[in-house]
Amino acid sequence: MSELHNRIRKSSLHSRITTVDQVIPLFKNGMNLGWSGFTPAGYPKAVPIALADHVEKNQLQGKLRFNLFIGASVGVETEDRWASLDMIDRRWPYQTGKNIQAGINEGRIRMGDKHLSMFAQDLGYGFYTKDNGGRLDLAIIECSAITENGDLVLTASCGAVPEIVQIADKIIIEINTSIPNFEGLHDIVEPITPPNRLPYLICRVDDRAGSPYVRVDNDKIVAIVESDKPDNGRAFSEQDDTSEAIAANIIDFFSAEVKAGRLPKSLLPLQSGVGSIANAVIGGLANGPFTGLKVWTEVLQDTMLDFFDSGKLDFASTVSLSFSVDGFKRFYGNWDKYSNKVMMRPLSIANHPEPIRRLGCIAMNTPVEFDIYAHANSTLVGGTRMINGIGGSGDFLRNAYLSIMHTPSARPTKTDPTGITCVVPHVPHVDHTEHDLDVLVTEQGLADLRGLDPKSRAKLIIQKCAHPDYKPLLADYFERAAHDCLGRKAGHEPQLLDRVFKMQVNLAKKGTMKIDNWDI
Amino acid sequence: MSELHNRIRKSSLHSRITTVDQVIPLFKNGMNLGWSGFTPAGYPKAVPIALADHVEKNQLQGKLRFNLFIGASVGVETEDRWASLDMIDRRWPYQTGKNIQAGINEGRIRMGDKHLSMFAQDLGYGFYTKDNGGRLDLAIIECSAITENGDLVLTASCGAVPEIVQIADKIIIEINTSIPNFEGLHDIVEPITPPNRLPYLICRVDDRAGSPYVRVDNDKIVAIVESDKPDNGRAFSEQDDTSEAIAANIIDFFSAEVKAGRLPKSLLPLQSGVGSIANAVIGGLANGPFTGLKVWTEVLQDTMLDFFDSGKLDFASTVSLSFSVDGFKRFYGNWDKYSNKVMMRPLSIANHPEPIRRLGCIAMNTPVEFDIYAHANSTLVGGTRMINGIGGSGDFLRNAYLSIMHTPSARPTKTDPTGITCVVPHVPHVDHTEHDLDVLVTEQGLADLRGLDPKSRAKLIIQKCAHPDYKPLLADYFERAAHDCLGRKAGHEPQLLDRVFKMQVNLAKKGTMKIDNWDI
Repeated sequence: MSELHNRIRKSSLHSRITTVDQVIPLFKNGMNLGWSGFTPAGYPKAVPIALADHVEKNQLQGKLRFNLFIGASVGVETEDRWASLDMIDRRWPYQTGKNIQAGINEGRIRMGDKHLSMFAQDLGYGFYTKDNGGRLDLAIIECSAITENGDLVLTASCGAVPEIVQIADKIIIEINTSIPNFEGLHDIVEPITPPNRLPYLICRVDDRAGSPYVRVDNDKIVAIVESDKPDNGRAFSEQDDTSEAIAANIIDFFSAEVKAGRLPKSLLPLQSGVGSIANAVIGGLANGPFTGLKVWTEVLQDTMLDFFDSGKLDFASTVSLSFSVDGFKRFYGNWDKYSNKVMMRPLSIANHPEPIRRLGCIAMNTPVEFDIYAHANSTLVGGTRMINGIGGSGDFLRNAYLSIMHTPSARPTKTDPTGITCVVPHVPHVDHTEHDLDVLVTEQGLADLRGLDPKSRAKLIIQKCAHPDYKPLLADYFERAAHDCLGRKAGHEPQLLDRVFKMQVNLAKKGTMKIDNWDI
Repeated sequence: MSELHNRIRKSSLHSRITTVDQVIPLFKNGMNLGWSGFTPAGYPKAVPIALADHVEKNQLQGKLRFNLFIGASVGVETEDRWASLDMIDRRWPYQTGKNIQAGINEGRIRMGDKHLSMFAQDLGYGFYTKDNGGRLDLAIIECSAITENGDLVLTASCGAVPEIVQIADKIIIEINTSIPNFEGLHDIVEPITPPNRLPYLICRVDDRAGSPYVRVDNDKIVAIVESDKPDNGRAFSEQDDTSEAIAANIIDFFSAEVKAGRLPKSLLPLQSGVGSIANAVIGGLANGPFTGLKVWTEVLQDTMLDFFDSGKLDFASTVSLSFSVDGFKRFYGNWDKYSNKVMMRPLSIANHPEPIRRLGCIAMNTPVEFDIYAHANSTLVGGTRMINGIGGSGDFLRNAYLSIMHTPSARPTKTDPTGITCVVPHVPHVDHTEHDLDVLVTEQGLADLRGLDPKSRAKLIIQKCAHPDYKPLLADYFERAAHDCLGRKAGHEPQLLDRVFKMQVNLAKKGTMKIDNWDI
């Protein structure tokens, strides 16, 4: 018996095994599709790539377009290639790739982003496919096995699969035989619609709230295909001096909080984003003074393996394993060592405010920029150009015990090495409000904003976080705004609306945010 | 035995009974104070008023200033009078009153607002009083009784009392003998700090998760005084044609959602704010087609009594009873009828994402304004002038099954009956993001934004919600912005940052938001 047949333990399903070519005709223009996958891991590859080949070969660009609902981003060889072939009409709630971003920002692809925990729920409620009776036409789910009962064993992510299989009319399964069977690593709670929901009984990061399997109506499974394509592993973000300095500021802060009795010595469950700063923070913790640490997050990167190896990290709950190719090799090669320290959960649990707030997570994420009153922009460069989406940052930052955002204080433009300040008077797009954030950090320093009114926050953020090139400009703005607004008895949070985005306008025109002055 | 002694069933506490004059010396300049109370109900009156009299009589204005932490706003005869006597340095997280607002917007009072559920937690964590070891120096708690065990029975609100008594060094109790004993109406969960928290076992609005009493270290009780002052009842907001039209739009929407199968016939637990629109919605439901309704909210106004009387409302969970003087009379006069249909809970439970999301609440709140992409400003007029605070609107709107905001499409200025549009290109302050809101409503119509990308949202909001006086201006802005941003491949959410607040600037200068055109 082939490995594929071995993986499908319910033998009556063997008759559904087919080839990717056979499933192509199932796809019709305008369909609503749901995929497995999350920040590229555990997504279907064989069928989406075959469909892209079909479109390319038959010059069907623009004639086979789909509405694509996936937990978050998936590999560029799938969604981004689809975008390049004009195969995407709508895309929710997060994406990566140059072609898909071009499509969104040029108006060809309609994208919406929502907090990931809400996305999963709202998709399940049928809110995104109201015009289609709340249904998805077709789902494509990557699995590592199917049990004797016909339950699905997922692969390197859980995403929004539980909701997708509930509302999908038909399901295509890709069994990936090139990777181990992940059985036991997932914790799936079957979604229930209000008002009949129960508490999620998760009081520790390693508590199991559901079952290892996704239950699915087997009659919906119209095809099972074999896949031998690995996830398109995430490239490792190099650490640099700036990231190291930011991480050092954060570790110092944790030490002070432990000393003050506001954090236990083993800290609290950590949520950490992706990228070089997140890697530096995890690296710092792996070499730091704290032990018995736990992680409750969305994505595990390669540095988490080092963190486990350091002996400091006890357990990690995540939505996906987003390792590099080498990281996956390391994980698979040490399966017994790592696999019982990891649990994967769907968005609707991992990002749910209920466990995040109960556990008291420490949330750490990188924005595009933040402002002097502690609003942050995570999604739209210049207030208008979409990068990836808000993802789960709001789920964590709103509900964490400590909500931390970290960014370099300045970024380069083509003509000015510090042409962009990441500390501005007013972010042109707000994803996280002043009511949500506790601590802002750059390589310059850390501003602890807890208990501060807006004007005190502004002074501290400029002092601690701004790049020296921008400190005088920001201080001058704040002083002018305070003078104007307090003078007309409207100065709780001073702003000058007639020139508040002068730095951004200057950047667009002159390639730097260094304006001469704040005169209009 | 006096009524006061009857209410204090632990007789060893009778020795702590004293007069308000005797407690005045306990108050020292610079102290951190915690009060009971929430959107004016259940707050201490005897001691705060006596202290204000003391300051006024002895000309101590500016010499006795306090940091004031209270669940939300309290009666104007207390906090607003304190503000008029320069007795407030810091105030968290919500307030009402002309004097306190003037103090905040002129820079004399430092106010911060945070989602109420987080405020209660963060206060308990000691975040707001870090410089004081995380402690409150003194708490003043209004109670209706003290049990044999020394546990507190609160009055018409729960606010942040459970957290306040935990971190207060000393506690003054006001026993209000002018109102009934509220015993059994409260559901108190003792706050626990992470990582040792348990789920809140609330699956129905009438589920009890804790005890009817606030447990408190009796050694902290330094004084018990009698109070005969009733809550300063909330004035009733008159309904008008605009509110009625908004309410009718919402009821129609509910009917359509029930028909589509996305809402049960008894809807889902309702959260409704305060004011004329909220009253109109509740009035509409009391006369509407839905039965077996439930309320999970922060504040019950007089209209809720009519709602009970209509037979349509089964149960209401709330933080406070914010009735008018007549409303309280009606509640007290029909105690048996109403009291077993009501439960009061503290902020940390009533506003907690866990029950709000599990129950699948329908959240309805009024903003100052919203924008064409569905961001809403709830706190700062003109982006800078504080009104009351964000309150619990974010707790509910982020976590509800349906998140609805309702406002008149325009408001008058001194010179123009529609001088202010409540639908703007870009709100100058964001309290609720595009990622949070599902439905926007004005008297003009209702925009169902679920599943729409930003540009589709903008078109629909302008079409359905904007006042006819502003529709052409808003449509022109959107068209210009889209043309500009899509042209430079940055048009996910088009804006023109060099003129985005032109309407607001015009309002400040010319008393209307009706600009001639969008040229710079």
